Amino acid sequence: MLGGSATHFALAASFFTEVRMVGPVGEDFGEAELDVLREREIDTTDIERVAGGKTFFWRGHYDYDLNVAHTDETQLNVFAEFDPKLSERSRSSETLFLANIQPELQRRVRAECDGAGFAALDSMNLWIENAREELVAAIGEVDCLVINDAEIRMLTEQPNLARAARAVRELGPSVVVAKQGEYGAALFTGDEFFAIPGYPLEDVLDPTGAGDSFAGGLIGYLDSQGVSSAAEADGPTLRRAMAYGSVMASFNVEDFGTERVRRLSAAEINERLAAFKRITHFEEQPIEVRA
Amino acid sequence: MLGGSATHFALAASFFTEVRMVGPVGEDFGEAELDVLREREIDTTDIERVAGGKTFFWRGHYDYDLNVAHTDETQLNVFAEFDPKLSERSRSSETLFLANIQPELQRRVRAECDGAGFAALDSMNLWIENAREELVAAIGEVDCLVINDAEIRMLTEQPNLARAARAVRELGPSVVVAKQGEYGAALFTGDEFFAIPGYPLEDVLDPTGAGDSFAGGLIGYLDSQGVSSAAEADGPTLRRAMAYGSVMASFNVEDFGTERVRRLSAAEINERLAAFKRITHFEEQPIEVRA
Repeated sequence: MLGGSATHFALAASFFTEVRMVGPVGEDFGEAELDVLREREIDTTDIERVAGGKTFFWRGHYDYDLNVAHTDETQLNVFAEFDPKLSERSRSSETLFLANIQPELQRRVRAECDGAGFAALDSMNLWIENAREELVAAIGEVDCLVINDAEIRMLTEQPNLARAARAVRELGPSVVVAKQGEYGAALFTGDEFFAIPGYPLEDVLDPTGAGDSFAGGLIGYLDSQGVSSAAEADGPTLRRAMAYGSVMASFNVEDFGTERVRRLSAAEINERLAAFKRITHFEEQPIEVRA
Repeated sequence: MLGGSATHFALAASFFTEVRMVGPVGEDFGEAELDVLREREIDTTDIERVAGGKTFFWRGHYDYDLNVAHTDETQLNVFAEFDPKLSERSRSSETLFLANIQPELQRRVRAECDGAGFAALDSMNLWIENAREELVAAIGEVDCLVINDAEIRMLTEQPNLARAARAVRELGPSVVVAKQGEYGAALFTGDEFFAIPGYPLEDVLDPTGAGDSFAGGLIGYLDSQGVSSAAEADGPTLRRAMAYGSVMASFNVEDFGTERVRRLSAAEINERLAAFKRITHFEEQPIEVRA
């Protein structure tokens, strides 16, 4: 079914800001698929349909633990030969998200969008294992890394997450976001730490794409607030961005593929944000500690 | 070194309320060990020293992932033959915590403390595997289960935590607390859900006992607030109890054994509580969602 990092990201981000999507698809990616994006007013000008090509394909499964996706098959297909050429509009974007793909491709898009004041990047174990040097270079060219916590540890060879996040910041990004599946997500900057839990759902139908929907809510919200450089991303705005990311991820898992996010209403998004506030809020009340 | 569920629990709880500790020790448990408890004004009347006996002993190790303790050796020793006989003072306690041990022993202590209006229980995989029926009966006799999230799933054979917590509540306890290691902890009652992250420490020396220190902060705080039944444990109080539990767990891991918790000051506890408030807080700010 329709999926992919960029698709999940773009749909989630489209609730907050204008989105332009860049990437190759094959002949199997038809009008029905494009319509899902167009319905959300996503600019598809830079989606390049490769004659005779096949769209990127991923198949995996989940066992008992829905936090761990087991990859059964990855076909790069049209991505293997992709040579990104961005339209003028895309090149002039102020905010850039490099969804999970070969780091070499991420770097080429980053180079074309060199005016983007705030760039973020996602990646995965596959590239840490097979293209570490290129990935480290790509990370050095962005302001924000959004990645699974297990992969932050793997990348930095540092089991302690706080230390691992610091090691990532030493590579370049001033903002590091650790995605933690059902446990939520954590934010590390030079000045602050923030954590938000996952939403407690009794029916998780499909966790695929939740991390990309999270990134879409996060980066889409930041863009909507006019954050056009890491320096402009203040604490309260970053925290709200984490909350909107969590909102979008929580909807993503309620149905298969893109089904749930596509049909979201503004009211649902606002209600879920209020629910996140409720489930994380406590009031301090001074007591006398017996020490 | 000095440890054990009851010891970690009692030390943490002693910062909030009067604590009476019940259990057997061997001849190897000397005045030095008792002094650690007495320094915190813990009532040790019901610590029974068994002539010729050896104290309960646990040895384990941690690999890359500090969330998972690997047990190398468990010796029940004096617990194998323990026949709890509680003093009048202990029997009249309003709040009872049954630290992790054979469920049959937990039930006998529960029966002696039948006046306790709020009873909580911890357990572990060992008893789920070897004494499931007895454990389910013990759980049915308490108001609150405080247990690792992996063990809630194992106990209920339900991979989804929200469903697993509901299944536990159907066994009896109206309050279910899932301990999640470095990811924090989650609270499930009939009416509400609350989650709090772990504290982001760069130096975690020893996670042993963190769960017991968490329970000590949680239950100790509830007792200090005069919560003497599950019905009296309202949302704001339970949330603050979760926060104090998290505070005590976060200190526990900063040093080996009981070293850090023993020497805590009131100021340190209050400062860490404020830090937990900071790292979980975000302000909503209405935006126009594009839907």
